[in-house]
Amino acid sequence: MNTFEALESNVRSYCRSFPVVFNKAKNDVLYTEAGEGYIDFFAGAGALNYGHNNDFMKNRILDYLTSDRIMHGLDMYTTAKQEFIESFSERILQPKGLNYKLQFCGPTGTNAVEAALKLARKVKKRNGIFAFMGAFHGMSLGSLSVTSNNSMRESAGISLNNVTFIPFNSTFNGMDTILYMEQLLTDTHSGVEKPAAIILETVQAEGGINIADIEWMRDLRQLCDDHDILLIVDDIQVGCGRVGSFFSFERAGIVPDMVILSKSISGYGLPMSLLLLKPELDIWSPGEHNGTFRGNQLAFVAAKAALEFRDTVGLEAEVKEKEAFVQQFLREHIQTIDPLIAIRGLGLIWGIDASHLGEAFAKEVAALCFEKGLIIERAGRNDTVIKIMPALTINLENLRKGCNIIKESMAQVSNSLVTL
Amino acid sequence: MNTFEALESNVRSYCRSFPVVFNKAKNDVLYTEAGEGYIDFFAGAGALNYGHNNDFMKNRILDYLTSDRIMHGLDMYTTAKQEFIESFSERILQPKGLNYKLQFCGPTGTNAVEAALKLARKVKKRNGIFAFMGAFHGMSLGSLSVTSNNSMRESAGISLNNVTFIPFNSTFNGMDTILYMEQLLTDTHSGVEKPAAIILETVQAEGGINIADIEWMRDLRQLCDDHDILLIVDDIQVGCGRVGSFFSFERAGIVPDMVILSKSISGYGLPMSLLLLKPELDIWSPGEHNGTFRGNQLAFVAAKAALEFRDTVGLEAEVKEKEAFVQQFLREHIQTIDPLIAIRGLGLIWGIDASHLGEAFAKEVAALCFEKGLIIERAGRNDTVIKIMPALTINLENLRKGCNIIKESMAQVSNSLVTL
Amino acid sequence: MNTFEALESNVRSYCRSFPVVFNKAKNDVLYTEAGEGYIDFFAGAGALNYGHNNDFMKNRILDYLTSDRIMHGLDMYTTAKQEFIESFSERILQPKGLNYKLQFCGPTGTNAVEAALKLARKVKKRNGIFAFMGAFHGMSLGSLSVTSNNSMRESAGISLNNVTFIPFNSTFNGMDTILYMEQLLTDTHSGVEKPAAIILETVQAEGGINIADIEWMRDLRQLCDDHDILLIVDDIQVGCGRVGSFFSFERAGIVPDMVILSKSISGYGLPMSLLLLKPELDIWSPGEHNGTFRGNQLAFVAAKAALEFRDTVGLEAEVKEKEAFVQQFLREHIQTIDPLIAIRGLGLIWGIDASHLGEAFAKEVAALCFEKGLIIERAGRNDTVIKIMPALTINLENLRKGCNIIKESMAQVSNSLVTL
Amino acid sequence: MNTFEALESNVRSYCRSFPVVFNKAKNDVLYTEAGEGYIDFFAGAGALNYGHNNDFMKNRILDYLTSDRIMHGLDMYTTAKQEFIESFSERILQPKGLNYKLQFCGPTGTNAVEAALKLARKVKKRNGIFAFMGAFHGMSLGSLSVTSNNSMRESAGISLNNVTFIPFNSTFNGMDTILYMEQLLTDTHSGVEKPAAIILETVQAEGGINIADIEWMRDLRQLCDDHDILLIVDDIQVGCGRVGSFFSFERAGIVPDMVILSKSISGYGLPMSLLLLKPELDIWSPGEHNGTFRGNQLAFVAAKAALEFRDTVGLEAEVKEKEAFVQQFLREHIQTIDPLIAIRGLGLIWGIDASHLGEAFAKEVAALCFEKGLIIERAGRNDTVIKIMPALTINLENLRKGCNIIKESMAQVSNSLVTL
Repeated sequence: MNTFEALESNVRSYCRSFPVVFNKAKNDVLYTEAGEGYIDFFAGAGALNYGHNNDFMKNRILDYLTSDRIMHGLDMYTTAKQEFIESFSERILQPKGLNYKLQFCGPTGTNAVEAALKLARKVKKRNGIFAFMGAFHGMSLGSLSVTSNNSMRESAGISLNNVTFIPFNSTFNGMDTILYMEQLLTDTHSGVEKPAAIILETVQAEGGINIADIEWMRDLRQLCDDHDILLIVDDIQVGCGRVGSFFSFERAGIVPDMVILSKSISGYGLPMSLLLLKPELDIWSPGEHNGTFRGNQLAFVAAKAALEFRDTVGLEAEVKEKEAFVQQFLREHIQTIDPLIAIRGLGLIWGIDASHLGEAFAKEVAALCFEKGLIIERAGRNDTVIKIMPALTINLENLRKGCNIIKESMAQVSNSLVTL
Repeated sequence: MNTFEALESNVRSYCRSFPVVFNKAKNDVLYTEAGEGYIDFFAGAGALNYGHNNDFMKNRILDYLTSDRIMHGLDMYTTAKQEFIESFSERILQPKGLNYKLQFCGPTGTNAVEAALKLARKVKKRNGIFAFMGAFHGMSLGSLSVTSNNSMRESAGISLNNVTFIPFNSTFNGMDTILYMEQLLTDTHSGVEKPAAIILETVQAEGGINIADIEWMRDLRQLCDDHDILLIVDDIQVGCGRVGSFFSFERAGIVPDMVILSKSISGYGLPMSLLLLKPELDIWSPGEHNGTFRGNQLAFVAAKAALEFRDTVGLEAEVKEKEAFVQQFLREHIQTIDPLIAIRGLGLIWGIDASHLGEAFAKEVAALCFEKGLIIERAGRNDTVIKIMPALTINLENLRKGCNIIKESMAQVSNSLVTL
Repeated sequence: MNTFEALESNVRSYCRSFPVVFNKAKNDVLYTEAGEGYIDFFAGAGALNYGHNNDFMKNRILDYLTSDRIMHGLDMYTTAKQEFIESFSERILQPKGLNYKLQFCGPTGTNAVEAALKLARKVKKRNGIFAFMGAFHGMSLGSLSVTSNNSMRESAGISLNNVTFIPFNSTFNGMDTILYMEQLLTDTHSGVEKPAAIILETVQAEGGINIADIEWMRDLRQLCDDHDILLIVDDIQVGCGRVGSFFSFERAGIVPDMVILSKSISGYGLPMSLLLLKPELDIWSPGEHNGTFRGNQLAFVAAKAALEFRDTVGLEAEVKEKEAFVQQFLREHIQTIDPLIAIRGLGLIWGIDASHLGEAFAKEVAALCFEKGLIIERAGRNDTVIKIMPALTINLENLRKGCNIIKESMAQVSNSLVTL
Repeated sequence: MNTFEALESNVRSYCRSFPVVFNKAKNDVLYTEAGEGYIDFFAGAGALNYGHNNDFMKNRILDYLTSDRIMHGLDMYTTAKQEFIESFSERILQPKGLNYKLQFCGPTGTNAVEAALKLARKVKKRNGIFAFMGAFHGMSLGSLSVTSNNSMRESAGISLNNVTFIPFNSTFNGMDTILYMEQLLTDTHSGVEKPAAIILETVQAEGGINIADIEWMRDLRQLCDDHDILLIVDDIQVGCGRVGSFFSFERAGIVPDMVILSKSISGYGLPMSLLLLKPELDIWSPGEHNGTFRGNQLAFVAAKAALEFRDTVGLEAEVKEKEAFVQQFLREHIQTIDPLIAIRGLGLIWGIDASHLGEAFAKEVAALCFEKGLIIERAGRNDTVIKIMPALTINLENLRKGCNIIKESMAQVSNSLVTL
């Protein structure tokens, strides 16, 4: 580890929570150089929904590589891209009755967020965007402007403008937030300009596993329609099956104007991002938003394989089963530790909110989990929410083991608090 | 191609110049689905300096993939990352006497540019940046703010602030540009605030293959020192050996405060970016600039292999030979077509500037080249500069063939002009 | 009037509502060139609290002018300025136990608002300001950024940044607004930076005669104290005795960090503005905020006379009497016309809010009032609030006459509505 | 003076250079409370072109005041305003063949600058403005954004955007500045957007008495025409006869699209500002840019009197005589002190640039002048330019006396330097 400390920037972060050197991985377990296994409830921050080194996808990738297929071709037409597009259309868009065009952006989520914001402003000829308190959309300047974390915003070094933050979800402090936005838009003296778009995570993952109400999402869609505002759903972390259905907004029956995908879209941990846009919004000039690696062919191959894998194994149904298990486990074994603990979740993203116990609690629990062989992240304000986000393909045995580690660790840290 | 036209956004660009579907590639040749080969003078916009599917690197990648090594681990410590860091230190930094820390950013160049600008502002507690006319640094909002292309800037939809553009290179319109900057900095009524950093491409690739003078780069480094301003070199396109030496600034003997690498740093077309920063600038808080795919392990494996490959085959010397060939060819066979054509270049990046013949000329030449089996890009104002940028590993035979195709195409288009 | 139509810009406004040419005026009556008198319920938008051509002040001004005293001296020391400062200190600050320093700004309210915002940002080293929905603070770019009227904001032509608008007064849509601000300030993911200052009108005059609750003002002062935020009160329109007491915030017993005065501070219609600031905030460098006419000596002379006049005639008590009259009149004669009409007011600024009757209603009422010999303005969203703001020195007879004209006009317009 | 030190903000400035209390004034002399006279080469920073308490104007003002004419009426139609408009049209616009509409702004120069910038952006639907290095246009945020003084800009506390600063006058550092702007506008990669307007002082007064070349002004007008950009002349300080002709741009024979007047437009030191705009630009909505004191009637009365006074006494010819005197005096008596001293001037605004002698020199000279009975300001970078700007009505005797005081003071300070 001396290498990292001597040569890698202080900006490195997760390695500080998991101070070992990893070398191998398979599905739901990471292995250190010494061969010790850790159950993975982190899943590459949501980039590994299909598990580490999924064999179905691996074979496709190896075949592609072995036969000297195009690895990089920017946005030239390639067989790999064509096959992905067709597969995505047939397996996702058509069955769901969705009519979107596909834009391949630089292969990081933030890049696709930047594209969506640009396009919204271009289409509507307005400057403003509404974003939600608790939102996380990325670190490049455009995405950061719609990200709510104040200390990250400050590190921009310049003012981040043209964005209005709205409290997330139906009510806030006794106020109906839809009605609030309605008033901002109709009060001629609100001081707030009509935005080009509203950008939404249906589940705020980094924000602390905050789940949007179904009625609220429908009302938000209606508000956008009433005022000629675009609705952009950032499905980077909770799309690609994380909540069960492929898109996270399906449970509300709404259709966003743009959808941003990244993380698990390629499925094998390979960088990729994808912006879906309604055809009538596609007023881009050729090359108007570009980037060298928007042609990551290996990711297209993996992404196509991922869609097939999903269907073959019936992943959506599998997630529902595991969701039921986690929900029951948390209710019976975690909430019982302390009735003030809040449990929030959907599909295979769950949060244990112990913010009432202070900042140190979640940190100690996560550290203890790691000691016991579980990799788990924290999220939310002051990182006080323990975040359960395993691969969707995790086997039930490891899911139970991981949950038990959390239970034991929480009990242990709770006891030490009581003793103090 | 119906798939692309029906489902891919209008923003697609290169595919319009090369309207075939590519499937395979090896070193310096791309093959269509029908098996037709095209010599590649484009090299993935500079991401494929070691050629398509370089066998030395390919074997390493296949080994890594086959043995279920970690594919994605965000910024956790991994064997692959450690080995890359050590290799980069031993093969690049130490021999050159450079003392930098490494920051892995989201794997696109623009992401690392964003990080560099943030860090410069954070370190110097100033808002402003100086950038150069003709500069291209990326499409996300921070990078776009230092990119000079006015139509791309306009597509931001909002004002891009806190940047002052300076004419590129030693003199402009009879004026000494270093003296100009000196006056901006010392005149108390210049209206221009002292910047945190100056961001420089030593060769403006997208800007039209504009090559910075050695003296000017030294003076710029001195200016930065005199005024406590950071010098950031964006070596995304012309680093990684493109001009011969690994870094493009080595020819001037200067040491930038930060260096941005991407494109060919992984060498196999796999997305990766890297920010080098002087240790004293490393005041980041953990996770202050982050991104999911900053842990693209496969890219680390390829990147390490690339460094070994470079040394093994003596790539730097090879580039010098090919540089000499191209230079002589352009002087003898291209400039002779029309004495007003300007030839600019270094290493294996060369521009044929035929802007005096209007916008259509370069476009027609490139189209004719494609018909004759050569893939070539255009750059610069109004895309009037034909840009020669093959893999550094191109064999001499294909290099000659490609150059001859350009020669014939230019002659043919010139003749048709004369006839008209 | 051809002169005006031919040569004065379309931006002219009030003249459109009162299409006659005025020539003379005395106390509460304006006279046209033809000698017709109009009762004035407009008072120069609040600049004429002491009436037109107040004799007490007039004599002082004439004496000053006649004896060739300094008319303009920028910010040089002058006898007139010294006497005003001393008088203001003795008659206003000392009796009220207030400890402020005086800054003379360019003689318009907006100029002093600009100074206050600059100073707040300089003192607190923060960019942001909180302003309130419904607020009006002026038309220059800094003041406009804290003004809430969206169409006026749009006419800036550029983005107005670094300001967050908060709903005015205690509750909004069921939400406690103090608690809302508290959450913006303490939620680490609110997306809203801690502001340097909050700028408040205790009565929003242009916003529609919206009156801040006393408890709310106290809570706001506490919020500022708790979070190290400056409280700026813009008393341009409702200071100088408009609500009875000299400052409008006295009724809440709070002490702002800065107070902005203009309009009636000189009292005779002569341009002047004044920024009061707590001594510890006075970190200005000499000349750091300047302006040619900040030395309007004649205004100082008038302003000193105004303070004496106030005390001599017992103006504060007089306002209380007239307030009682107006309040009773509106309750008995106006609200009875239509129970949905809202009456809001304090001192001698009152609003008749008939917004439920649509935009045309107030406009027609004001036009009819003018026909009947009364000059009256409208305010608020869509100008639907009829605004009663006579000189504080208006005689009771004219006050009653004016009120009766409003009553008759409203009845007449109401009847025509009913008939339709 | 204790009053000022105890109660007036530190921002006060001129009083620090002239630490006496002034009481009376007549034409070109200011008198302290003790009755000591000081010759005035400062003229209220250009607001007193017709001298202190000019009797011709004074009588008009007294008559107006005495007869209870309207003192303040916002932008209602008044006899005083009508008479001013007609007089301005007949005496200024028509004889010069100029076709402008008049907009009355809040009565400070900065207010009219704000209006001009807003209107330019509204008309052209562009964000950017070009301003010149050395420019001073005011302290409110919009005006400050086009003001070049870096320390004043910094005191805004936020970024001042959407403005590009261009070197003033024909050449800069060997470069043709018109050609430079031409290239910014035509280079598609300049990074600089096409501006809505260029704002120009034909003589930069605060900037150090820098005088624009006639050819350059014509070329600038042509550049604006060629590129559909508005030309705004800020004639606040050097208009109203300061350079001889009423407008400062007349010597170049150009017609700006907008002209900003303030300072001496009312002539008696009374606050007023005036924006002239070509009729086709008058797309303002009623009240879109407003302000309480834009109806300073007394200023209109004075302004009309000033125009008559100008014509009656033949002020333009008088200025030419005095200009000749000053020019000769400076050449013979000042430049001879030190050949490195630069003399710049026109009409009755002249600068003695002794910047090569360091910051202290001009400061000491001005202080010594004051001791000897002369009030004189400094301007330019680091205030190293001694600025001669008496009333245009100064009598020749006092003009000579003042000049001699400068001569003696400079000699004395020079000698003390030599001795050191």
